[in-house]
Amino acid sequence: MKNYILLNENAIFYECGFSCDNVVFLNLGSDKYFITDARYTTEAQEYAKNCIVIQSSDFIKDVQELLKKSKIKKITFDPNDFKLSFYQKLTSDIKVEFKPEENFSKEKRVIKSDKEIELLKKAAQIGRSGFKNLAKYIRKNGFEKSENLLHFKAIEKMSHQGKYDLSFDPIVAINKNAAKPHALPTSKKLKLNDLILVDAGVKYKRYCSDRTCTSNANFEKFSFKREQFFKNKKHQKIYDLVYKAQLNAIEKARVGMKASQIDKLARDVIEKGGFAEYFVHSTGHGVGLDIHEFPNINSKSDVIIEENMVFTVEPGIYLPNEFGVRIEDTVVMKNGKAQIL
Amino acid sequence: MKNYILLNENAIFYECGFSCDNVVFLNLGSDKYFITDARYTTEAQEYAKNCIVIQSSDFIKDVQELLKKSKIKKITFDPNDFKLSFYQKLTSDIKVEFKPEENFSKEKRVIKSDKEIELLKKAAQIGRSGFKNLAKYIRKNGFEKSENLLHFKAIEKMSHQGKYDLSFDPIVAINKNAAKPHALPTSKKLKLNDLILVDAGVKYKRYCSDRTCTSNANFEKFSFKREQFFKNKKHQKIYDLVYKAQLNAIEKARVGMKASQIDKLARDVIEKGGFAEYFVHSTGHGVGLDIHEFPNINSKSDVIIEENMVFTVEPGIYLPNEFGVRIEDTVVMKNGKAQIL
Repeated sequence: MKNYILLNENAIFYECGFSCDNVVFLNLGSDKYFITDARYTTEAQEYAKNCIVIQSSDFIKDVQELLKKSKIKKITFDPNDFKLSFYQKLTSDIKVEFKPEENFSKEKRVIKSDKEIELLKKAAQIGRSGFKNLAKYIRKNGFEKSENLLHFKAIEKMSHQGKYDLSFDPIVAINKNAAKPHALPTSKKLKLNDLILVDAGVKYKRYCSDRTCTSNANFEKFSFKREQFFKNKKHQKIYDLVYKAQLNAIEKARVGMKASQIDKLARDVIEKGGFAEYFVHSTGHGVGLDIHEFPNINSKSDVIIEENMVFTVEPGIYLPNEFGVRIEDTVVMKNGKAQIL
Repeated sequence: MKNYILLNENAIFYECGFSCDNVVFLNLGSDKYFITDARYTTEAQEYAKNCIVIQSSDFIKDVQELLKKSKIKKITFDPNDFKLSFYQKLTSDIKVEFKPEENFSKEKRVIKSDKEIELLKKAAQIGRSGFKNLAKYIRKNGFEKSENLLHFKAIEKMSHQGKYDLSFDPIVAINKNAAKPHALPTSKKLKLNDLILVDAGVKYKRYCSDRTCTSNANFEKFSFKREQFFKNKKHQKIYDLVYKAQLNAIEKARVGMKASQIDKLARDVIEKGGFAEYFVHSTGHGVGLDIHEFPNINSKSDVIIEENMVFTVEPGIYLPNEFGVRIEDTVVMKNGKAQIL
């Protein structure tokens, strides 16, 4: 693919090591252009590699001129990244054919470089220390605190008081609320031996971490460790089943498998346990600059798993109006096997 | 306008009093439809007023069917709210003409109802108490704290520890960094008699507050009050000029003026002071469900200011590599005049 146009910040960062919130990136044959406004040109000139930085106050006009000058006939773009209004203006009065290709940048990014894996490891470490600090807070102060406040504390601890950006808005959900895979926090308060689910991640140099823990709110001993002892027998039964499913997928995942086979490794354990219908989402997703990248780890994906792919393994069981359990780690394929980052 | 389609959450909330992050709203003649997925139908049925809630697992198909059944010929949409990929799928294989009209929902919302003004007042009050709590933190603990940490503290105090959503990511900028109207926080630390600019807002029942204060970091006496005493004489001179410009616009704004006249009330003061070229943005913008609504208060806007319009008045002077001052309040037009919310 010789000619393409990018609007997505992470896609552009991947191309040249810099990005900002108002930029068009053009790859025209062997020439790359970083078109941005006056606010960002100084930094772009310093940090954007292998591309010509153009300061523009009229992106439509300047991109059209570059396209005309280059004499290319076709250019690839991702229709998910284009607002209709921008697309219509850009493509009016110009002869270049715009070829839609969904996710072509994410396709490129599916196998991580060793340098990217280092950054993802560092993000995972920072994420783990955030979880530890949140556990400490809950041990000391969590009793009777609302999901709303605990959600805020998750932001505080994961971001290390604003030092790091978050990968996404954390999920903090108690009991019934944890039965919703994407629960929003409420005024519900944490009580002794409640089940609490926390899904959170942090960015290090733009690379994301992603992890979910489900724990028993026993306060004095509270932790996000994988070994959890629930007062409620049903909590324990479901937790153990999800944990077994996750371990099975992580331990048996191999380079050369289809993504659907890894999904099956987790799903089969839950199915055997009799809870297949309550595992309502896919087993995982790629992680990188975006929190959701390729490969998708689901029952339909024929993608072959390769060395240096990075993805989550996150089976869950959601019992409506009762509770939900999800256990998620991010793994990298190394020496043919999955390693937790 | 009888027929329109909406995707924007706030635009939809305005129509029916409910919204969620995955919904298409259709107004077809006298029928209104709220099309959403299984996660939201229960709440939609309870809260969405005067519309038929439809649970859908295929929005494209279901919207196309409703359009066909209605036999309408034209439907208005906002091209800023449509992703190209969704638009192309939706408009393929259907005879209805899609008429682009930018910002038609925001146009509708330019004059606020008394109920909306109550909510905006409440948001402003919560915002003010957030600023007070941030000032208290800075008085006690602000010395040598980084912009990054102070930015996090702004989030903490404005949101009342996560109880309220923010209108936008706050700006916290010290000295030089305040010379950038949209500064990002850095590791720069607050020192005695630095100038610090904070721009922040909070939402109450989805309605936004918006306020900017510029203060002298004298710690013991630190506050976000309008009366500020700067150690640095140039800080004081610029601050006084911006303050005078803002007061002039607020005191003399009248129903019946053009928006450009209100812009001029602020701009003329700064021009007379000799700093016109450093007031690099417009004087204000409407505030409501969105943080940026109509009317725009700029030098080109012919919009006539009416009773119950709500907008910011926020002149600023930005001296590159030195410092910047912005003073912003949100006002409502009542009894012909501007009142600070």
